[in-house]
Amino acid sequence: MSLLVQKYGGTSVGSIERIEAVAEKVAGFRARGDDVVVVVSAMSGETNRLVNLANNISNAPPSREMDVLLSTGEQVTIALLSMTLERKGCPARSYTGAQVRILTDNSHTKARIEEVDVHRLQADLKLGRVIVVAGFQGTDCDGNITTLGRGGSDTTAVALAAALNADECQIYTDVDGVYTTDPRVVENARRLDSITFEEMLEMASQGSKVLQIRAVEFAGKYQVPLRVLSSFEEGPGTLITLDEDESMEKAVVSGIAFNRDEAKLTIQGIPDTPGVAHRILGPIGEANIEVDVIVQNVAEDGTTALTFTVHRNDMAQAQALLTDIAKELKAPSVLADADIVKVALVGVGMRSHAGVASQMFKTLAENDINIKMITTSEIKITVVIEEKHLELAVRALHTSFGLEGSGQI
Amino acid sequence: MSLLVQKYGGTSVGSIERIEAVAEKVAGFRARGDDVVVVVSAMSGETNRLVNLANNISNAPPSREMDVLLSTGEQVTIALLSMTLERKGCPARSYTGAQVRILTDNSHTKARIEEVDVHRLQADLKLGRVIVVAGFQGTDCDGNITTLGRGGSDTTAVALAAALNADECQIYTDVDGVYTTDPRVVENARRLDSITFEEMLEMASQGSKVLQIRAVEFAGKYQVPLRVLSSFEEGPGTLITLDEDESMEKAVVSGIAFNRDEAKLTIQGIPDTPGVAHRILGPIGEANIEVDVIVQNVAEDGTTALTFTVHRNDMAQAQALLTDIAKELKAPSVLADADIVKVALVGVGMRSHAGVASQMFKTLAENDINIKMITTSEIKITVVIEEKHLELAVRALHTSFGLEGSGQI
Repeated sequence: MSLLVQKYGGTSVGSIERIEAVAEKVAGFRARGDDVVVVVSAMSGETNRLVNLANNISNAPPSREMDVLLSTGEQVTIALLSMTLERKGCPARSYTGAQVRILTDNSHTKARIEEVDVHRLQADLKLGRVIVVAGFQGTDCDGNITTLGRGGSDTTAVALAAALNADECQIYTDVDGVYTTDPRVVENARRLDSITFEEMLEMASQGSKVLQIRAVEFAGKYQVPLRVLSSFEEGPGTLITLDEDESMEKAVVSGIAFNRDEAKLTIQGIPDTPGVAHRILGPIGEANIEVDVIVQNVAEDGTTALTFTVHRNDMAQAQALLTDIAKELKAPSVLADADIVKVALVGVGMRSHAGVASQMFKTLAENDINIKMITTSEIKITVVIEEKHLELAVRALHTSFGLEGSGQI
Repeated sequence: MSLLVQKYGGTSVGSIERIEAVAEKVAGFRARGDDVVVVVSAMSGETNRLVNLANNISNAPPSREMDVLLSTGEQVTIALLSMTLERKGCPARSYTGAQVRILTDNSHTKARIEEVDVHRLQADLKLGRVIVVAGFQGTDCDGNITTLGRGGSDTTAVALAAALNADECQIYTDVDGVYTTDPRVVENARRLDSITFEEMLEMASQGSKVLQIRAVEFAGKYQVPLRVLSSFEEGPGTLITLDEDESMEKAVVSGIAFNRDEAKLTIQGIPDTPGVAHRILGPIGEANIEVDVIVQNVAEDGTTALTFTVHRNDMAQAQALLTDIAKELKAPSVLADADIVKVALVGVGMRSHAGVASQMFKTLAENDINIKMITTSEIKITVVIEEKHLELAVRALHTSFGLEGSGQI
């Protein structure tokens, strides 16, 4: 007898047959005596269809109206899933974000949840109803429809779980959990039974896109136990826990994340004086280009070089800005390189274990992989290497840190 | 400088191109200085698509969830039309029924409007915005989404016009007004410049489906000037007025309506005693079969015959019920006839003009058309004739009462 909040994404509700399968699963939990709140996304393809309609009208449709348009996607799903549950004899009620009263700020298309009113939901739960809530949407304090941005349904689920004090927030997706690394790269990557929020955040920010980063942050902040499971097969999934001691894995390194989306920019021969980093990165930030890894080194001639990474889509713009800055600073050269990847070891165990970094660098050296940049945080070591070495590096590190499983993919 | 409420139906907003044309029209009124509130339906085909999704799940989907599902249709249209208006530089804001707060009762799929809150709309109008409202939908007092049933967008428009005290409620449709009769039957049928609410109601109830009956009743009750116009061509349309003296047509007969959807049932040789009509029609009513025309005549042998019409779809069921009743009443025979039509002359001028009925009967007789039933009201004379005579009858009456125009269809 638990209170579960379950989230099913677009692929999981992509057709009448899939909605049928979700209803079957939900009805099963209900029959076992659990109270269930279901959060759903738009049927896969629907959001794109709506975006295309808008794009046929304008290349910059007003964001308030985009939200009115896009929020219909989830509204269709909640109605269809509730109908299916009712037909199975499982009493159900649908709610849009506004009907629940998921109050957000008024940043249309990327709103943030401020408050969730659960009194209607609690009344329905008492009556034995399954509650079906439209993910990804809310309302601002003036009654305007808002959306949380793509993937925001995870955040809706976590926010409801927090407000309802649910026993678990279960995110059903097309993978059966969080892996030590991408199973497409390392065949014997292993599903983790548990992972801490911090590790999950680092994995997510490095391109392991199982969960929305904001949802993980939110779950960590409100201490909501979060579990990632497969919609399509049975299994325990991966539990994301607050407490690293509860973790069943005692490994130093929990996983290896990587990200092919970045490009590296270097400005060389700049004066090694205070304020120079700001003069370089200020205009980049003003152009709304997000900078990720930043490294600065002093050269022997008293000048310095600054290297940073940006999203590959922003490389050309960043390079142009940087060329102007170089002229002002009389710096001799600007280098841009898109053929790089970031590879990161993640694990809360690193805090108490020395030698992780040196073992990482040794493994890469043994495989003749040159490291172009290094940064570290308390639970993560990131290197930037040439893209062509990605698979080799990830496989070698996976073996070196003993992450292999039985290859149960 | 008028305040106009304009309603555009599903065909008028059936594609991005059509929405573009509607925006052009609306922006034109705005540029002239009019305040405009637009009510739109779902894009044509969308409601059927949604109904099909639901029917794939259940043959009796819960009506609350049907409303959640169907209301998305209009919500898509309001967003797309608002985006188009904004792109044209015409500030616009969309509102769902719930956002306006169109309060209805809780009869899902056929709710009735109880109250309209216009203070948000008035604030937007003051700011020079065009308001785009989703037709056909509202909210009950518990915040559940309701719909008004098919065609309910007309009612939404009239209700908003009444609440806003609009100068005119304009219903844009695929015909350019109300005609003296169906132009597909009488080539030189004439568009009426004006018609009274009562006449319009009689025309509508007789199968002239330009407007929803409920919308006309509503407009009459709240004295909202209503105009039917074409979305696709320019023209003054037909004004539906309260005051028959304002009418520019001083004709005795305004139009001829007809209806092919009915069937006639007769029970003969029943005792001419009090209560017999109730014994016959009671069970028909209990079976939820709507009875339209009823005629009773006394035969010479002291028995009587009762004839009434029902919708053709209900004929078989009504006939079965009637056969049972006939046995109880020892009535010798029950006759059913689906090959009939109702033809009605409608006109407020009849009130003050004798001889309309006799001219009608004379015209039909001259064309060898046998009259099977006759009923009259203050502004309407209805006859039931054989279906094969429909075109002949309507054309002859159209000529006889001088309704021809120049055939400007």
